[in-house]
Amino acid sequence: MKNKKSVFITIEGGEGCGKTTQSELLKKYLESKGLTVILTREPGGSDVAEQIRNILLNPRNNISSFCELMLYEAARIQHLQEVIKPNLKKGYVVICDRFTDSTLAYQGYARGLDKDVIVKLNNIATEGIKPDLTIYLDIKPSKGIKKAITVNKGSFTGGDRIERENIYFHYKVRRGFLAIARKYPKRIKKINTNNIVEKTQKKINIEIDKFFKKKKLYV
Amino acid sequence: MKNKKSVFITIEGGEGCGKTTQSELLKKYLESKGLTVILTREPGGSDVAEQIRNILLNPRNNISSFCELMLYEAARIQHLQEVIKPNLKKGYVVICDRFTDSTLAYQGYARGLDKDVIVKLNNIATEGIKPDLTIYLDIKPSKGIKKAITVNKGSFTGGDRIERENIYFHYKVRRGFLAIARKYPKRIKKINTNNIVEKTQKKINIEIDKFFKKKKLYV
Repeated sequence: MKNKKSVFITIEGGEGCGKTTQSELLKKYLESKGLTVILTREPGGSDVAEQIRNILLNPRNNISSFCELMLYEAARIQHLQEVIKPNLKKGYVVICDRFTDSTLAYQGYARGLDKDVIVKLNNIATEGIKPDLTIYLDIKPSKGIKKAITVNKGSFTGGDRIERENIYFHYKVRRGFLAIARKYPKRIKKINTNNIVEKTQKKINIEIDKFFKKKKLYV
Repeated sequence: MKNKKSVFITIEGGEGCGKTTQSELLKKYLESKGLTVILTREPGGSDVAEQIRNILLNPRNNISSFCELMLYEAARIQHLQEVIKPNLKKGYVVICDRFTDSTLAYQGYARGLDKDVIVKLNNIATEGIKPDLTIYLDIKPSKGIKKAITVNKGSFTGGDRIERENIYFHYKVRRGFLAIARKYPKRIKKINTNNIVEKTQKKINIEIDKFFKKKKLYV
């Protein structure tokens, strides 16, 4: 079924905030409203981008911050051209687990790279495409990172390269996300989560309903 | 032995121009002059950069031009920080098989990406480090590409992803290199090569001797 209009939703947050679970639940929720929904993720989401993801997340790799930034942007471009753009063009709802806000939070606020350079690279890589709505799942790093390493079914036992960063890194990431959310209050909806799945899901759906009703996008 | 001063030499050219052979011969030649020489290559030259190289050159990968550009820059940053900069700091001669001119020729002139964006990204990635001397090996693409695919001992039978591009692509690359060489006549020395190894080697050594004597860099 063709939707009325394409919608690009991103789900953001630190390690172990429940992004993946909530993205899947949101997909089902929007499908129950009669919409066609594509769920994808960054880094990755396309064959070449997943190869880049493997380099990025392999804890054996010692990657400089700036090389890391370029790899995220490279994966983003490929993913955007192969998955996000074609599906938005078809009029679908695209839900993306992580996007440009993660780059600014992780590589800018936490790694300390120049934020203006990151914003410029993000704009070049996305060709100006911005999310219509962003759900930011806020969790205390001390809670999130524990869950991420023990629960995530990634290929790297003991956590991937990013999850293994020390706790101060994850606090900087969170400060980054909070600052970005304050800067774009219209686009970004901050949801406090304590990883009680149903509660968080309810809060997300309230924001989603508001957005879709306001835009008259429910079928 | 410590050299008088570090020198950064890049060897550039299209597929099958003899870059790799000539880089090795040049290393031996400069060592015979008493210099310490590090030979490296792009993309690659460090563990993470070689992983990126594998993505870039695998002919099964369908990579968008802009993602390709970002991957080259990502590999460059890692290689620069791990290999080029530390060895220049030690006062060595660093010979690099391909560098920023290749990015401008291949991604700019041949793929058609915005050359100003490439120059900006090159500058960001290299932190402004420029080669002291560039040897550009000029060969007709019809001759070079044949040699590249049959002679190169790469991991990809039938040529890597770049070698497999059609002949018009390689003519555009050459036009690019020629334009860049005209723009920077002081830095870039153009050497016509027909893949007669000894003749080309002699021509290169004449340029090398001129440069090193002028700079009083021979031990």
